[in-house]
Amino acid sequence: MTPPPGSSPGTDQSVADPGLEDGPGDPGMDASDEPDHDRVPTTDARSDAPPVATRDRSGLGGFLDGDQAATRARARNFLVEHDVTARFGLDTTTHRAQVWDWLQALADDGVFAVGLPAEYGGESDLVGATATFEELAHGDLSLLIKAGVQFGLFGGAILHLGTEEHHERWLADIISGDLPGGFAMTERGHGSDVADLGTTATFDPDTDEFVVHTPDPDVDFKEWIGNAADDGRMAAVFAQLVVDGERHGVHCLAVPLRDDDGTVLDGITITDCGHKMGLNGVDNGRIWFDHVRVPRTNLLDRFGHVDADGGYDSPIDNPNRRFFTMLGTLVQGRVSIAGAAVGASKSALTIAVRHALRRTQFSRPDGRGVRLMDYPTHRRELLPRLARTYALHTAQQRLAHELADVFADDDVERRRPLEAHAAGMKAMTTAHATDTIQAARQACGGLGYLSENRLGQLKADTDVFTTFEGDNTVLLLQVAKALLSGFADDFGSLDLRGMVGFLTSRVIDTIVERTSVRTAWERVRDLVDRDQSGPETGLRNRDWQLAMLAWREEHVLGSLARRMERATDDDADEFAVYLACQDHMLAAARAHVERRVMEAFATAVDEAEGDLGAVLNTVCDLHALATIEADRGWFQEHQRLSAERSKAITRTIDDLCAELAPVAGDLVDAFRIPDAVLAAPIAT
Amino acid sequence: MTPPPGSSPGTDQSVADPGLEDGPGDPGMDASDEPDHDRVPTTDARSDAPPVATRDRSGLGGFLDGDQAATRARARNFLVEHDVTARFGLDTTTHRAQVWDWLQALADDGVFAVGLPAEYGGESDLVGATATFEELAHGDLSLLIKAGVQFGLFGGAILHLGTEEHHERWLADIISGDLPGGFAMTERGHGSDVADLGTTATFDPDTDEFVVHTPDPDVDFKEWIGNAADDGRMAAVFAQLVVDGERHGVHCLAVPLRDDDGTVLDGITITDCGHKMGLNGVDNGRIWFDHVRVPRTNLLDRFGHVDADGGYDSPIDNPNRRFFTMLGTLVQGRVSIAGAAVGASKSALTIAVRHALRRTQFSRPDGRGVRLMDYPTHRRELLPRLARTYALHTAQQRLAHELADVFADDDVERRRPLEAHAAGMKAMTTAHATDTIQAARQACGGLGYLSENRLGQLKADTDVFTTFEGDNTVLLLQVAKALLSGFADDFGSLDLRGMVGFLTSRVIDTIVERTSVRTAWERVRDLVDRDQSGPETGLRNRDWQLAMLAWREEHVLGSLARRMERATDDDADEFAVYLACQDHMLAAARAHVERRVMEAFATAVDEAEGDLGAVLNTVCDLHALATIEADRGWFQEHQRLSAERSKAITRTIDDLCAELAPVAGDLVDAFRIPDAVLAAPIAT
Repeated sequence: MTPPPGSSPGTDQSVADPGLEDGPGDPGMDASDEPDHDRVPTTDARSDAPPVATRDRSGLGGFLDGDQAATRARARNFLVEHDVTARFGLDTTTHRAQVWDWLQALADDGVFAVGLPAEYGGESDLVGATATFEELAHGDLSLLIKAGVQFGLFGGAILHLGTEEHHERWLADIISGDLPGGFAMTERGHGSDVADLGTTATFDPDTDEFVVHTPDPDVDFKEWIGNAADDGRMAAVFAQLVVDGERHGVHCLAVPLRDDDGTVLDGITITDCGHKMGLNGVDNGRIWFDHVRVPRTNLLDRFGHVDADGGYDSPIDNPNRRFFTMLGTLVQGRVSIAGAAVGASKSALTIAVRHALRRTQFSRPDGRGVRLMDYPTHRRELLPRLARTYALHTAQQRLAHELADVFADDDVERRRPLEAHAAGMKAMTTAHATDTIQAARQACGGLGYLSENRLGQLKADTDVFTTFEGDNTVLLLQVAKALLSGFADDFGSLDLRGMVGFLTSRVIDTIVERTSVRTAWERVRDLVDRDQSGPETGLRNRDWQLAMLAWREEHVLGSLARRMERATDDDADEFAVYLACQDHMLAAARAHVERRVMEAFATAVDEAEGDLGAVLNTVCDLHALATIEADRGWFQEHQRLSAERSKAITRTIDDLCAELAPVAGDLVDAFRIPDAVLAAPIAT
Repeated sequence: MTPPPGSSPGTDQSVADPGLEDGPGDPGMDASDEPDHDRVPTTDARSDAPPVATRDRSGLGGFLDGDQAATRARARNFLVEHDVTARFGLDTTTHRAQVWDWLQALADDGVFAVGLPAEYGGESDLVGATATFEELAHGDLSLLIKAGVQFGLFGGAILHLGTEEHHERWLADIISGDLPGGFAMTERGHGSDVADLGTTATFDPDTDEFVVHTPDPDVDFKEWIGNAADDGRMAAVFAQLVVDGERHGVHCLAVPLRDDDGTVLDGITITDCGHKMGLNGVDNGRIWFDHVRVPRTNLLDRFGHVDADGGYDSPIDNPNRRFFTMLGTLVQGRVSIAGAAVGASKSALTIAVRHALRRTQFSRPDGRGVRLMDYPTHRRELLPRLARTYALHTAQQRLAHELADVFADDDVERRRPLEAHAAGMKAMTTAHATDTIQAARQACGGLGYLSENRLGQLKADTDVFTTFEGDNTVLLLQVAKALLSGFADDFGSLDLRGMVGFLTSRVIDTIVERTSVRTAWERVRDLVDRDQSGPETGLRNRDWQLAMLAWREEHVLGSLARRMERATDDDADEFAVYLACQDHMLAAARAHVERRVMEAFATAVDEAEGDLGAVLNTVCDLHALATIEADRGWFQEHQRLSAERSKAITRTIDDLCAELAPVAGDLVDAFRIPDAVLAAPIAT
C-alpha cells in the first residue's frame, strides 16, 4: 500500500537532502539541525515586514539570491502579504478586479517601481527591478504582466523616449498608479515588423497639435494593448510622424485615452481583445484613432523633436538608426520577460520535484514504495531542466547587471550588444519555460492537471512569453544578424534591406577569417583527449565542455558567414539566399546564447566553495552535458564527438542525475518560493 | 502594407493548391473547377441529413476517410447540426450544462454508440466507433470525453465484463442516455498500479450482497471519475473481491450512485475534483464507499463468478492472467484516445497551416508580403508534423481494424498483441498531439493566443491525454515488456514480480538470437548504398527508410535483451537492473511503434496512384526522414549514418518541405473539418 501524497506531507522530505544539511565549517551553509523547514527565514528583508519563511537551508538559496537577497525577499513578502497567488477558474471581470486591486497595492508599496527614477518615487535600481520581476513571477502572472505594462512599458516609454518635461508631467503619477497607461505599439497587420506601422501622427501647425489617426481600420489598429480595454487613461502610442508632408519614421506620443471618469475620449474606439488562453486578468484591448488631436508637447521627443514652426530635428541623423535606438531603450522589457520565464520555470520545477520526492508508484520487493524520483526515466525529465534553470538564472543575473551598467553610462551606442544579449536570453528562457512547465505537468500526472496544483494556469499564462516582447524566431534572427554584422549594423531590421545590406560588409570577411583558426579548440583537445583511457575521460572537464560550445558557435557562425559570402559572389537572388539561410541563422544564434549561458554559469560556480561548490559543479556538469547531448547529432556530423564518446555522454548524464536526486529537494528549496505563494497542495 | 488576416478570407486560398486541382483522368481526384470550396460535399453521408460541406477537393480527403467516409461524414454532420464547437471562458456550471445537453443529443442521434451491440440500440461497428471518436474530437472535447465515459468506459465495462443478464438490464438505458454512469477504477493512491487498488467488495452470504468499501479514506478513494460529480446514477466500480476471507483480485461491480432524483445514495460520498487545466465540461468526481451494499448479481462476472453459497469460479485460473484479461477487454478506450489525439492534431494543423498561407510578415524587394509559409523555418515547424499526422492517421486506421478483427473473433488470448499495439499508439499519438498543438499555437503568434482561435483550449483539453487511459511512460514500458516477452507474459504487470520474472525465460534467448542476424539490413544496404554517387542517394528509397527504422528497433531490442540476460547471469540486484534498463525499454518501445507507424503509412501510400500517389509519397518521405533525423545522433552512434549522409537528410527535409508547401492547404483541407466546427476566425 502506498502512502497518499499530501496526507502526511512531512514524512518524505528528509530523504531529499542528505548531502547538504551539515556544513558547520562552511559559511555558505546553514548549520541548523532544525527539521522544521518552514521556520527558516530567507534573509535580511529590505522592508520592515518580517521576512517570509522558506524551506531553503542549504546555502544554495544564498548563492542564487546573490547581491539581490534583500530585494528578492521584499518581493516575496509582498506576494505573501497581499495573497498574490495564481488565480484560476475566475470569470474575466472578477479576475481583472482582483488584479486591479493588487496593482494599487503594488503601487502603494513601491515594490515594483524600483527601476524607475528615485526623484519620482522609484529607486533607480535596474538590477533590483529585474530581480523583483523574476520573484513576482511566482504569483499571479496577470498581475505581473499588467504591472509590467504600467511601470515597465508605459513608464519606460515616458522615461526613455520622453524628456524631463514629460517626466515631470507624468512619471510620479505613473509610479503612484494614479495614471494607468498602455504601450500601444503592435498593430494587427504589423506584428514583428514595427517599422511599417500604419498609425500616423501628423503635425498641424495651425493648432500646434498632432493628429493621431488609424488609416486602414482593418490593418492598422493597435492590438494586444495591455491596460487598454478597461483601465488605461493614456497610452504611449507609436505612429509614423508626418510633418509638412514629410515622413520621419516611427515616433512615440503620449495620447490620452479616457477622461477621469473612465469614459473613452472622442475619436477613440477601444474594444476588448477577448478571451485568451491565459493572462485573462490583463485587459488587452484594440484601439482605433479617428483624427485624435494631442498637443505638440505630447510627442516624446528625446530622439526627434518638432518645434512650433514645424521644424524637425533629431540627435540621430540616420532615420533607421534613430528608429532602432528608440526601440533599444525599451530593452528592459525583454530582460524582464526573461526573468519572468526563469521564475515560472522555478515554480513548475519546485512543484514537480517535491511531488517526485513524495509520490510513490509501485513497490520494491520488500514492499517499500518506489518514489517517482527513484526512477531514472523520471529523473531524466526533471533534473536536466533543473540544471538548465540554474544556468539561466546565473546568466540572467549577469544580463541584469549588464543592463544596469549600460544604462548608467547613458551611451546609446553601447546598447547594441546588450540588445542582442537580451533578445537571445528572452528567446532561450521563454522556450525553456514552455518546455519545462509542460514536462512538469506530465511528471505530476493527473494531479498536475488539477488547477489547484498550478501547472495548468502556469502553462496557459506563460505560453505567450515565446511570442510577445518579440517573437522568439524573429529575436534569434536578430541575434544572428548582430553576430554577423559585429553589432555594427542597425540592430533589428529584418526586411531585405536590413538583412542583405551588410552581407558585403567587411565584418563578414572578419568572421570568415576568425572562425577559420580554431586555436582554442586545438588547445583544449590536446589537453583533454591525448591521454584519455576511455570515452568517459574528461567529460566533466569544464574547459572541454566550454570549448565544445565555443567551437560549435564559431563553426556555425563561420560556415554561415562563408555561405552568405559565397552567395553574394555570384548573381544569386539575395532574398532567396536570406530565406535559405534562416535555419542556419537560428542555429548560430542558439549556439551563441547557449555558450554565453554556460560561461556565465561556469563562472558563478567557480566562485562557490565547499559542499555548495561540489553540488553546483555537478549541476553545471549536468547542464553542460545535457546541452551537448541534445545536439550530439550535430557534434558527430562535425567530428567533435566520436560514437563512443557520444554514448558515454548519455551514460554520464544518467550518473549525474543519480548523484543529484538526493539533493533535488534542496535545489528547488533554494528558489525560496514561499509555500503560501507556491500554493500547490502537492508541493506545500 | 500587408493585408490583414481574415479581412478578405478568400484571396489567398487559391495559392495553396496549385499542384492538385487538376485530375480529370484520375478517379481519386475531384475534377471540379468550381472555385467555391465551401460547396463541395464530403461524400455519401450515412444519415438523411445533407452532407456537410468541406473545402476538400483534392482527393486526399477520400484517401484519409477510406472505408469510413460515410461514418465520418455522419459524425461531422452531428457536430454541425448541434453546434458542438469548442467552448472557452465558460464557468463550470454553464459548460457542464451545455455538455449534458449535447450528450442527450448524441444519445438520441445514436452517432456515438455505433460500437455497442445492435440489439441494444448500437451498430456493433468497432471500426466505425473509432472513426466517430476521432471526428468528434474536432468539436468540444469535454463532450467527447464525457461521451467516452458514458458509452465507451461505462458501457464497455458492462458489455465486456458483464454477461447477457447485465446487458439486458442496463445496456439499452446506457445507449439511450437514460442511465448515466461512470467508470470507477483510478484511486488517489493507486494511479498506474491498478492491481493494488484499495477498495474492497466483500461478499455477505447472509444477504446475498457485496459490501463495497473504501478502507483508507486518505488513499483508497476513487479519483478522476468522469460523470461522477454531477450526473452519474451508477458506476462500474473496480474493487478487490473478497469471498469468505479469501481475496480473488480486482473485479468490477455495478454500483448505483444516485437515485432517480439525483440524490447521492446512503453510504456514498462524492466530491467534485475541482477545476482542471481543461475539460471542465466533464464532471470528474471523487468517491468514497462506506459499506455500501449491492446485490450479488451486480458483480460483472464474465471472468469471475460468485454463487449464492459463496463459491468462486472463473474461466481463467491464474489470478494475474484473469486480471489482465479483464483489463484487456477495455483496450478500446486507449484506441479511442489515440484517435482523439490524431483528431486534435488535425484541428491544430488546419488552423496553423491556413494561417501560414494567409498571414504575411515583412515584404519582398518588390513590395509583396512574404507569407509565413514562405519561410523555411516556419515550414519546418508545421510540415513534418503534418506528415506525421498523416502517418499516424493511417496507422490508427489499421489499429481500428485490428481491434474489430480481434473482438469479432472473441478469443481473449489473441488480445495481447492488440493491447501492446494500442498502448504504443496511444502513447505516440498523444505525445504528438501535445507537441503539435504547442507548435501550432506558437506558429500563429499572438492570434494563436486568442481563445477564439481554438489553440489554447485545444492545448488545455488534450494535455491530460498523455496521462489518462494509462500514463505514456507506463504504457511504453508495457510495450517493451510485451516485446521482450514475445507477448507471452501477462501483459501490463510492471511491479518487480511482473517485470523481472520473465528475464530468465526462453523468449529473451530467442530475441538475442534473432536480433544478431540483421539479414534485412545487409540486403537493403547493398541495394541502396553500393552505387551511391553522393550522400543524398537513396534517401527517398522507401525500402531504405523502412530498413533504417526496422534495424533500429531490432538493435535496441536486441541490446536490451542482451543487457537483461547478462544482468541475470550474475547475482545482480534485479530491481536495480530493471530500473537501470527503463530508459532502454522506452527507446525500444518507441522504435517499435515508429516502425509500425511507418510501415502502415508506406503500405497505404503504395495503394494510392497518380497525382495523389505522388503527393502522398512526398509526405511519406518527409515523415520517414524527419523520424530518422530526430534520432540522427543515435544512428550515427551506431554507424548507420555517416556524417555526410546525416547532413544530407537535413537538406532533403528542407527540400521536401519546399515541395509540399504549395499543397499544404490541400493536405489540411483533406481532414474535412467543417468550417463551422473548426470555428477559428484565422482559419475559416
